[in-house]
Amino acid sequence: MAALFSCQLHTLRGTIHSPEARKDYELCICKCNSLLSKRESNRGKLCSAAVLTQSKLRCTEESQKCDCTREFWKRTGLYCRAVGSQRAHLSSIGKRFQLDDVIEAQQFDRDTLSAIFEVADQMENVEKNLPRSQILKGYIMATLFYEPSTRTRLSFESAMKRLGGEVLTTENAREFSSAAKGETLEDSIRIVEGYSDIIVMRHFESGAARRAAAAAKIPVINAGDGPGQHPTQALLDVYTINREIGKLDGITVGLVGDLANGRTVRSLAYLLAKYDNVKIYFVSPDVVKMKDDIKDYLSSKNVKWEESADLMDVASQCDVVYQTRIQRERFGERIDLYKEARGRYIVNRNVLSVMKENAVILHPLPRLDEITLDVDEDPRAAYFRQAKNGLYIRMALLKLLLLGW
Amino acid sequence: MAALFSCQLHTLRGTIHSPEARKDYELCICKCNSLLSKRESNRGKLCSAAVLTQSKLRCTEESQKCDCTREFWKRTGLYCRAVGSQRAHLSSIGKRFQLDDVIEAQQFDRDTLSAIFEVADQMENVEKNLPRSQILKGYIMATLFYEPSTRTRLSFESAMKRLGGEVLTTENAREFSSAAKGETLEDSIRIVEGYSDIIVMRHFESGAARRAAAAAKIPVINAGDGPGQHPTQALLDVYTINREIGKLDGITVGLVGDLANGRTVRSLAYLLAKYDNVKIYFVSPDVVKMKDDIKDYLSSKNVKWEESADLMDVASQCDVVYQTRIQRERFGERIDLYKEARGRYIVNRNVLSVMKENAVILHPLPRLDEITLDVDEDPRAAYFRQAKNGLYIRMALLKLLLLGW
Amino acid sequence: MAALFSCQLHTLRGTIHSPEARKDYELCICKCNSLLSKRESNRGKLCSAAVLTQSKLRCTEESQKCDCTREFWKRTGLYCRAVGSQRAHLSSIGKRFQLDDVIEAQQFDRDTLSAIFEVADQMENVEKNLPRSQILKGYIMATLFYEPSTRTRLSFESAMKRLGGEVLTTENAREFSSAAKGETLEDSIRIVEGYSDIIVMRHFESGAARRAAAAAKIPVINAGDGPGQHPTQALLDVYTINREIGKLDGITVGLVGDLANGRTVRSLAYLLAKYDNVKIYFVSPDVVKMKDDIKDYLSSKNVKWEESADLMDVASQCDVVYQTRIQRERFGERIDLYKEARGRYIVNRNVLSVMKENAVILHPLPRLDEITLDVDEDPRAAYFRQAKNGLYIRMALLKLLLLGW
Repeated sequence: MAALFSCQLHTLRGTIHSPEARKDYELCICKCNSLLSKRESNRGKLCSAAVLTQSKLRCTEESQKCDCTREFWKRTGLYCRAVGSQRAHLSSIGKRFQLDDVIEAQQFDRDTLSAIFEVADQMENVEKNLPRSQILKGYIMATLFYEPSTRTRLSFESAMKRLGGEVLTTENAREFSSAAKGETLEDSIRIVEGYSDIIVMRHFESGAARRAAAAAKIPVINAGDGPGQHPTQALLDVYTINREIGKLDGITVGLVGDLANGRTVRSLAYLLAKYDNVKIYFVSPDVVKMKDDIKDYLSSKNVKWEESADLMDVASQCDVVYQTRIQRERFGERIDLYKEARGRYIVNRNVLSVMKENAVILHPLPRLDEITLDVDEDPRAAYFRQAKNGLYIRMALLKLLLLGW
Repeated sequence: MAALFSCQLHTLRGTIHSPEARKDYELCICKCNSLLSKRESNRGKLCSAAVLTQSKLRCTEESQKCDCTREFWKRTGLYCRAVGSQRAHLSSIGKRFQLDDVIEAQQFDRDTLSAIFEVADQMENVEKNLPRSQILKGYIMATLFYEPSTRTRLSFESAMKRLGGEVLTTENAREFSSAAKGETLEDSIRIVEGYSDIIVMRHFESGAARRAAAAAKIPVINAGDGPGQHPTQALLDVYTINREIGKLDGITVGLVGDLANGRTVRSLAYLLAKYDNVKIYFVSPDVVKMKDDIKDYLSSKNVKWEESADLMDVASQCDVVYQTRIQRERFGERIDLYKEARGRYIVNRNVLSVMKENAVILHPLPRLDEITLDVDEDPRAAYFRQAKNGLYIRMALLKLLLLGW
Repeated sequence: MAALFSCQLHTLRGTIHSPEARKDYELCICKCNSLLSKRESNRGKLCSAAVLTQSKLRCTEESQKCDCTREFWKRTGLYCRAVGSQRAHLSSIGKRFQLDDVIEAQQFDRDTLSAIFEVADQMENVEKNLPRSQILKGYIMATLFYEPSTRTRLSFESAMKRLGGEVLTTENAREFSSAAKGETLEDSIRIVEGYSDIIVMRHFESGAARRAAAAAKIPVINAGDGPGQHPTQALLDVYTINREIGKLDGITVGLVGDLANGRTVRSLAYLLAKYDNVKIYFVSPDVVKMKDDIKDYLSSKNVKWEESADLMDVASQCDVVYQTRIQRERFGERIDLYKEARGRYIVNRNVLSVMKENAVILHPLPRLDEITLDVDEDPRAAYFRQAKNGLYIRMALLKLLLLGW
């Protein structure tokens, strides 16, 4: 314990681990400062202060961990804690990056994704076991939702509480908050960051998450901003494919339903482009076809893609059939177009009958009738497992943003 | 401690206690499996796995409790914990039942009710003392309210927090959740159960709680489903009568007000039928008389009942005067009927003057003018104590559903 | 430890500290009773009961603190705990008062204010350090909001959670709670106090907080009642001036904007009158001038005040420029008056250019365009620090109301 204790320092935003720190504490501090993001400047000052406390630190090493942590943090603004096997294991994979905010799917590369997925795997154990984890005890997450999304909100709040953290909730910030009085998003963020350690924001405007992150001194997670991004959904989709199929390279994926307005299928396509030999089929009504920007992006990444009107044919070739809801709210006033699009390309037992043995059906949920109920019992129906995976992904992101590796 | 430790196993849903377990651990496991409800099948597998770890278990018995619990749970999916005097006391009364869900008042028999009441009595101490209990630490309760009921919601949430548990809240699931997009209740439940350990649901449709419980792998408590059931209200009513009057057999109860639409009086009548020599008076305006189904049920159980239009006469004979609000929302468009019914049969000081010395006035609350304010000071005004008892009943149910006896 | 242990007793509402208690425990109990507020009568009884347990107490003194606390509390209803340096420090300043509720700014005198500010200073450390404080662990705060105010609600809830406490939330009690069914405020309070240890209430009616406090057996904090009071805002305003300017006597303050309807400027004027040599300028459109009641009050307290239409002139003389929003909702139907008033007296870089080096600009927030964005970077722009101070003030009040000194 002591060996690890003296050489791992946590800031609110990151972690440093250097075995030689015991011998040379100053080096440890330097590394620590180099790891601090720009927004950590004032903590950075505290770090250098810690250099002056070396002797004090050594003596506290002899004392029992808990007191030391408290003392040391007070003195230096750094959180010095014992390293559980879980974190130790993580360090061993040697993935290191500074995750400041989660704004869009494109910000993640393959290495980052696999590192996050590894933490998510560990979170499944954390969630299943009693007594529950307390690694985020004392941290507060603010769920700032300018447009209601009970499912997403509960998923994030459960993730925070499963790790021992606290939550401040606003389910309808748009209607109730000062926004109704004309306050800018930036001002609202400057207030809320004073009450919390991390902000999970849902907004009705595309790009709102990026604006919030720019204004905030604490991490911001985009829980969906209008027609724009919903990165945690994209992460859990890719995570689920990896868990269910066992790989991401060389897979064939059919994206079905509303591809024009469906935020999730667009983000998913972006992420799949990071893997090799991926083949994508677009299956949708004409009125809601996948837009050219995505098609061009995929082509530029040498991702094979094809449009098809034949769900049965596509289903027989895919490892993943990703069904989506035709969202009425995306059609605005054009109820006629909605009626035309809705209910076509249903996934039912006929579709199941042509699918591969080990293929899976995914769906971001909620589903209406685009997947018939009799499909639920089939082991290839993975959409509820997919929803649960969202919890593990969000637990992983909260842990990484608040404690670092 | 060690003696108890080795022979009490908690699953998420129940408990087994077998003194001889120390000698024969396998027997203990068998009993445990037999106790697991059908929905525990996969935990069941974990149990049998535990048999293979006997030797490991023995060695951990020597080690200190806390570590053992953690280790043992991880290994077997069973929660093996020390037994506090409270639970020990409970075990001693020898009441044993598997409480899976709380759906309707009729599901409880006399023995179950008195066992629950005994736990509720203990919960009063738990709530009054500092430091507060942490027996549900790490557990998450989801309050899924499709129709708002601030009072009921806060009562459940307070109960959970008083036991150290966490809460996920939706105050208006109907308006905000995916239900608005047409998701089925069953799908919503399958999602929410992934975020929590127990679901407390309020719904606008009769029978919704039963459907939710059928779909859920975790316990569901019905916090009221439309005109249907509100079992925890019924439990707290009977619990209050037992506390205030000191008995349930041989009592005389006057049910007053809206008996046709009043969910609480209907459920209360059901429960009172389980006791001996109960006499019930129905006192209500003609437009909202008690319906025949209840009258027939009472007759079939040999419960004496009588309709009366004379509140003063009834009040003079009753141990309990159960007043109810004439609920406008139950009359729909018929404002005229509402006006006719409302405000009649007021409980005021005149009624008090004819009531027995040790009788009590109950009311599910909120009250409008059907009980005058000057009644509040009278010691027989028990309706605020009744509301507080709801907290103890809900604490008891949460404890029993999550930890078992 | 033992020395302190035997002589400090906490009730839910206050604290007594008497060094000689060790020699004469009965004396300690008497002092304790004398300290109990009227609403503590039943706890009072518990106290005297404790006298009978002297010998038991002595023996527990030998045992380790934690067990003793638990035991002793159970036995006497008093919370006997070790005294951290923080509290010890507080005792040393010798300020003693029984804070039952926080209803209006006027209830605080200079000594009380400076004592609260000292606790608030300590709360800044508590909030910045990890692991976070748990002094309110096991306590539940109910935020009963009859009118939405996300900012104020989140500030209180963050304060409670930063101290380890739990929260029950109602963001829109008016619409959802039993109030909609016609329940009186007093009845609602009698229910909610059964679920919580302290109530933070926001209401749309002036005087509602006082009514709630009169009905409640537990502390009530007024989080704003209609056009009436918003005492915690007033406290954080004065606290911020004291922190930023370093003093409260002899300062010059310009109150700008909607002075007729602005709750905050009215309360602030009341509090400033408690200090010596304060000069106040009222700068506002004619339609929303400061009302005579405040002017008369200030005159009666020999506070110099002056009305001015020249913001530049006033800004050049002030230590504090307190800008406020022209609140549309306070104008009701008179949109024309709103349009006339809004947008005048803007604080921009021109105003900054004439202000003193060490003066500050305050604003209760949210701000629209009455302070231009380019002012934010100026160190004299203190309104976001002011908002953060609200957290420390609320942490201090929660600590004082629940644990006492």
